Amino acid sequence: MPAISQSVTLLSGGGGGAKLAHGMARAVEDLTVVINTADDAVVYGLSVSPDLDTVMYTLAGEANSVTGWGIEGDTHATIEAMVRLGEDAWFSLGDRDLATQIVRSARLRAGAALSEVTAQFSAALGIGARLLPMTDERVATQVDTPAGRLGFQEYFVAHRHSDKVLGLVFDGVERARPGPGVLAAMTTADVVVIGPSNPFVSIGPILAVPGIREALEETPARRVGVSPIVGGRSLKGPAAAMLAALDHEVSALGVARLYVGLLDMLVIDEQDQDLVSAIEALGMSVLVTQTVLGGADDRERLARELLMAAS
Amino acid sequence: MPAISQSVTLLSGGGGGAKLAHGMARAVEDLTVVINTADDAVVYGLSVSPDLDTVMYTLAGEANSVTGWGIEGDTHATIEAMVRLGEDAWFSLGDRDLATQIVRSARLRAGAALSEVTAQFSAALGIGARLLPMTDERVATQVDTPAGRLGFQEYFVAHRHSDKVLGLVFDGVERARPGPGVLAAMTTADVVVIGPSNPFVSIGPILAVPGIREALEETPARRVGVSPIVGGRSLKGPAAAMLAALDHEVSALGVARLYVGLLDMLVIDEQDQDLVSAIEALGMSVLVTQTVLGGADDRERLARELLMAAS
Repeated sequence: MPAISQSVTLLSGGGGGAKLAHGMARAVEDLTVVINTADDAVVYGLSVSPDLDTVMYTLAGEANSVTGWGIEGDTHATIEAMVRLGEDAWFSLGDRDLATQIVRSARLRAGAALSEVTAQFSAALGIGARLLPMTDERVATQVDTPAGRLGFQEYFVAHRHSDKVLGLVFDGVERARPGPGVLAAMTTADVVVIGPSNPFVSIGPILAVPGIREALEETPARRVGVSPIVGGRSLKGPAAAMLAALDHEVSALGVARLYVGLLDMLVIDEQDQDLVSAIEALGMSVLVTQTVLGGADDRERLARELLMAAS
Repeated sequence: MPAISQSVTLLSGGGGGAKLAHGMARAVEDLTVVINTADDAVVYGLSVSPDLDTVMYTLAGEANSVTGWGIEGDTHATIEAMVRLGEDAWFSLGDRDLATQIVRSARLRAGAALSEVTAQFSAALGIGARLLPMTDERVATQVDTPAGRLGFQEYFVAHRHSDKVLGLVFDGVERARPGPGVLAAMTTADVVVIGPSNPFVSIGPILAVPGIREALEETPARRVGVSPIVGGRSLKGPAAAMLAALDHEVSALGVARLYVGLLDMLVIDEQDQDLVSAIEALGMSVLVTQTVLGGADDRERLARELLMAAS
């Protein structure tokens, strides 16, 4: 099918947001993805950006579809050798994935901005969409749990997101500025999409960067969200558990309530048909379709349905 | 054969010195290797220590015997992916070798000394010998050439040591202190050995660290060198070319002249039998034997012959 001549800006974490980005990249001529960087961490002395990488690998057609992160068919010679040297290799990185971390870390240390390095990588991998870090400054999600405050990767990877979430802190976000091009991409797009990413730890930090929430509130673009909660459960990861822990309804309606004033339309799954009128009562229209995404064709199908409903 | 109950301290670069270290480790009960760190560099943002690693991999039985550096059978998935990301991957590092660089870099950045990290790696790899960096401070060999001053790895790897050497600078060496245990290992050993390493860029920086040359001059130990020049040629690398370029005789005699006052005995190859009396005239005894080393048994053979002649 021909690409739709619209400009779309998608706010995304990894996972579901990356899949929708993949579908959008196939569906439209002009795609910008604004990506959460508050999951970024320094691991083994290397600057890792898990959400940026998942979107990048997904758009390059290289993402590992089983794990949801890393590169399909990657090997693990380096990490195994690190274990042998006595390193606690709690954060798994494949050999090709490590190349991304090594080169990014070296370029950042040499003074490049994360947005520059991301643009370089996108060009090298032949990615047509613009991938924009939400900010070039350091923002670090920290998770308050009964065991104390944990860094995000500590909570997510080392503890396998099993701790009850009492609260979230986006350390550094007050001083962060939107990355180059982020605000313009939101105010000039035909459609701004909030991807089916975790509202708290993927979309939350993006919206917490001063200026981004306001840009979404004020953009003349159509604003469409895709619920990451289907049938009362997360498609992946701890979104449902966080909704519950933070006293929200664990459903697409709970998601809709988080985005009141920010969305003109919410896309929900067929399983959640019964929530339509309650969501409409919040002041947004609803598109009901199949949102549990399969391969590239299915991702493009959702992108096209969304854009058709939004126009 | 039973291990010889002597303590030996060996000064070494990579290459020939590492092979002799391997033989010594099999021959004696107590071995310390003091290793050149002036080849160290930051490559892709990682702290690489080529001579330390060659000795370490050789003693662990993992060295790549074809290249003379790196790990036998290592793969190159990461470096290939780095090239794909647009990095100029001029310095090849295998995947398992990269693990060493990543972990070392992270631990150094976290405040550990190079000597500590080296001891941790040695323990993890089951190496019984003590591997001591010549210093924990940064010393960087720079090579003056007709094309200007080059960093050592730039000269050695990127330019394949093809530039004429006009002079050498060991940047930072005046302020460097011998690494922990280095002086004690030289003054308390039964035998101190200068390995068959490049006298200028492997042994030279070690002796240039304030205090080390004096310790070698004054130690009560027997002091034995092994010539890296056989039949007027380098066993490996640019030692012969450097002797010529810096106006020294390109022979074991030329090597002997560099070490006058530092050695009681020089080990030379059978091919250089005719140099014995000229070397003896410099005030050192000579052991003539087969010095072009093969596998582990041959390395041990040379170590035992050397120690027998020294005692």
